[in-house]
Amino acid sequence: MQRAEILGGISEDAACLTRRFGTPSMAEANRAVAGWMLQAGMSVRQDNIGNIIGRYEAAQRTDGSTPSTMIIGSHLDTVRDAGKYDGPLGVLVGIACVQALHDSGRRLPFAIEVVGFADEEGLRYGTSYLGSKVFAGCFPSEYGELRDDDDVALASAITAFGGDISACNNDKRSPDDLLGYCEVHIEQGPVLEHENLPVGIVSAISGQTRARLAFMGMSGHAGTVPMSMRHDALCAAAEFVLAVESLAQQTSGLVATVGQLTVQPGAGNVIPGHATLSLDVRHIDNDIRLDMYNRLRKQAEAISERRALTFDWQLMQDNISTPCSPQFAAKLAHAVEAAGYPVRHLASGAGHDGVIMSGLCSFGMLFVRCKGGVSHNPSESVMVEDVAVAIDVMNRFLEDFDAAV
Amino acid sequence: MQRAEILGGISEDAACLTRRFGTPSMAEANRAVAGWMLQAGMSVRQDNIGNIIGRYEAAQRTDGSTPSTMIIGSHLDTVRDAGKYDGPLGVLVGIACVQALHDSGRRLPFAIEVVGFADEEGLRYGTSYLGSKVFAGCFPSEYGELRDDDDVALASAITAFGGDISACNNDKRSPDDLLGYCEVHIEQGPVLEHENLPVGIVSAISGQTRARLAFMGMSGHAGTVPMSMRHDALCAAAEFVLAVESLAQQTSGLVATVGQLTVQPGAGNVIPGHATLSLDVRHIDNDIRLDMYNRLRKQAEAISERRALTFDWQLMQDNISTPCSPQFAAKLAHAVEAAGYPVRHLASGAGHDGVIMSGLCSFGMLFVRCKGGVSHNPSESVMVEDVAVAIDVMNRFLEDFDAAV
Repeated sequence: MQRAEILGGISEDAACLTRRFGTPSMAEANRAVAGWMLQAGMSVRQDNIGNIIGRYEAAQRTDGSTPSTMIIGSHLDTVRDAGKYDGPLGVLVGIACVQALHDSGRRLPFAIEVVGFADEEGLRYGTSYLGSKVFAGCFPSEYGELRDDDDVALASAITAFGGDISACNNDKRSPDDLLGYCEVHIEQGPVLEHENLPVGIVSAISGQTRARLAFMGMSGHAGTVPMSMRHDALCAAAEFVLAVESLAQQTSGLVATVGQLTVQPGAGNVIPGHATLSLDVRHIDNDIRLDMYNRLRKQAEAISERRALTFDWQLMQDNISTPCSPQFAAKLAHAVEAAGYPVRHLASGAGHDGVIMSGLCSFGMLFVRCKGGVSHNPSESVMVEDVAVAIDVMNRFLEDFDAAV
Repeated sequence: MQRAEILGGISEDAACLTRRFGTPSMAEANRAVAGWMLQAGMSVRQDNIGNIIGRYEAAQRTDGSTPSTMIIGSHLDTVRDAGKYDGPLGVLVGIACVQALHDSGRRLPFAIEVVGFADEEGLRYGTSYLGSKVFAGCFPSEYGELRDDDDVALASAITAFGGDISACNNDKRSPDDLLGYCEVHIEQGPVLEHENLPVGIVSAISGQTRARLAFMGMSGHAGTVPMSMRHDALCAAAEFVLAVESLAQQTSGLVATVGQLTVQPGAGNVIPGHATLSLDVRHIDNDIRLDMYNRLRKQAEAISERRALTFDWQLMQDNISTPCSPQFAAKLAHAVEAAGYPVRHLASGAGHDGVIMSGLCSFGMLFVRCKGGVSHNPSESVMVEDVAVAIDVMNRFLEDFDAAV
C-alpha cells in the first residue's frame, strides 16, 4: 500500500496523477519498481519499449533441464488524472509474492517474472498495449510514425527513453518455457463491492472497438448567421454524443463512451466549423459489439447528412472478446476457495494486457474489489485487507502450479 | 484591397489568420498601419492598450478656436482562423478617406482621427472591446488580473506590448472636441447580398450576453461503469448545446451559439467528469435577449439536476442593444443617396466598438456587403466595387459635416 502511494506521487502533473508512456515520470516509476524487484531477489532488465522486467530464478534442476516461467504483471502507465491502483497494484502484488518466497529462502520449480508494462492505457499515442505488444511480439513497426500531441514520433519517444524501435522485435518473449501470464487488477466496476467479495476471477475480457470521427460544417459569426443558415459541427457532435448514450442505455451489457471532443475554431463568438470525437464501444459478445458500432456509425452519417455537413470516421482499434484460460480460471478458483472466500467468476468490461498476452501463452486474471467501482479517477481506492487476500490467493495459485510442475 | 491582403498575411499561425491582442503579429499589423497613416499625412501614436491612432489635423482657424475631431476606425485583432476584412476594412477605409484629402492638399474644418483598436474580438482574454474601452475611458482596472490560455496576465501582456496598465486611464479621449465615431465594417450577414446592395446603414447593434458554464460529473472507466451509474459531464453538455440550438430556432431574430466546449479528463477510455462551455445570446430587443438567456440558464440547471451533476454558471459579458445616433444615420443615408444607391437601414447582429464608443460620443456605422454573409472564416470576401462605394459614401459623409461645422 505504501508502494502504491509512492508510485501515485510520480506524475507528469503536479496537480494530479498522469504518467504517460515514455515520459520522465515513467522512468522514475520504473526506477522505483526496479529497486523493489532487486530487494525481492530478482534480476532486473528494461526492454526497448520500456517494460521493466524482474526475474526470480527457479530452483536448480538436477537433470539440467530448463525450468518453466510464470509471468505476473500489469502496467505502470496511467490515464490523465488517474487513481493509484489501476495497473501498479498488479505489479506490486507480483513483487510481494516473490518477496514472500525470497524472505523464506524458497525457490519454486519454475521461474517467476514480474513485468511492469510500459503502456496499456494508450494516453500518449491513442493506441493501447504498446508494452505487451512488444513483449508478445505483435508490435507493428509502423507505430513508429505515430505522433503525440506535441508532434513527437513514437520512434523518437522510444529513443528518448533509452530504447531502439528497430530492436523491439528482438524483445519478443519466446512462449516455449512459459506456463502463462496472470494479472491482478482492481475490478474497476461495482460487482464485487455489491456482493461483498474481496476478489473475483475473470472469465473473459470484453471486446472493445474504438473510433475517431469528425463532423465538418461551416464556421461563421455567432451574431450574424441566422440559425436557419448554420452548419454547426458542435450541434452535430452533441446529437451523436446523446445517440451513443441512448443506444448503450437501451442495450443490456453495452457500454459506449465519447471521452474526447474538441471544437474548432473554438472561440465563444464563432460558430464551430469542426468537431472531433472519440468513440469507445464494449461488450462481452463480439456480434453485439460490432452491430452496435455499425449502428452508431450509421447514426453519425445520418446526423451529418441531415445537417448538410461532411463527415469522417476512422476505426482506431478493434479487439475481440478474450476468454481467460479455463485451467488458470480453475486454479485461481481453487486458490480463492482455499483462502476461504466464495468463488465469483465475472467478465471484465475493461481491456487489459491479457488481451495481448493471451496470444502468447495461457492467461488468467484476478480482480480486487475497489471502492464504488471507481477507476480512472483520483478517488480510486482499495482496502488493505482485500490486497492481502489477493496476495494470499496468488501465493496459493503459485503453490498449486508448484505441485503440478 | 492590397493592404487588406498584407494585413491578412500577418498572423500568429502560419496555417491560418489569427491575430490576438498584444501579440507580435499585432505589433507587426500596427507597424504596417502606422506606415500607411504616415503616408496619408497623419501623425501617429500608440496608446497604452495598443490602439494605433493617426491624426489628420483640421484646417487652421483664423479665430484661434480648437477644431472638432471626427473619429473613423475599427479593430485590427481577429478571431482564430479569421477572414481578412472583419476589422481591418474599417481602418483602411478611414486611411483611404484621409489619403484622398491629403492627395488633394485639403484639410477639413475638423480633424480626423483614424483608430485601429487593439482588441475587439476578445479571443485572448475572453472579454471584448479592450481597445475601445481604454479609448472611451471605461477600462476596468481589475482586467489586469485576467489570464490567457498560457497563464499570462493581461497586465503583463500590456507591458510586453510596450504599454503600462496603470496609465490606461490617462488614455481616455476627452469627448469635448468630438463630432463622433463612424465605423465601416463588413455586414457579416446575408441581407445586403440578398437585396443586391453594396452598403447599408446600421440602425442599432444587437444586445449580446455571454456566459461561461461548466457541468461537473464523475469521471470513470469507460469499460466498467454501467450506463445507469454514470454522471457524464459531456452528455449534459451535449443536451445543453442542443437546447441552445432549439430555443434559438424557435425564437424569431434570436441567435445563440456554443462556440467553445472542452472536456476533461479528455481521454477516449475515460468518462468525461467535467465539461466547460461558452454561451453567446444576441437579439435586438433587450427584454427578449434576457428572457432567453434566463431560460437557457434554467434549462442548464434542469439538465444538471436530472443527471445529478453539479453546475457552474458565470455571466461574462452583457451588452444592451445600442442604437446608432439618428443624426449620423441620417447623414450616412444622405451620403448613400448622393452616391446613387438605395438607402437600406439594418440591425447589426454582431457587436462592434461602437457599443463602447456610443458612451463617449455620437456613433454611426456603415455596412459593406460580404460574400454569402460569411465572416469569422477564411472565405470572408468583399468586392472591390463595394469598397469603392464605401469610401465614396464616407467621403460624402465627411463633406456633409464639413458643410455643417
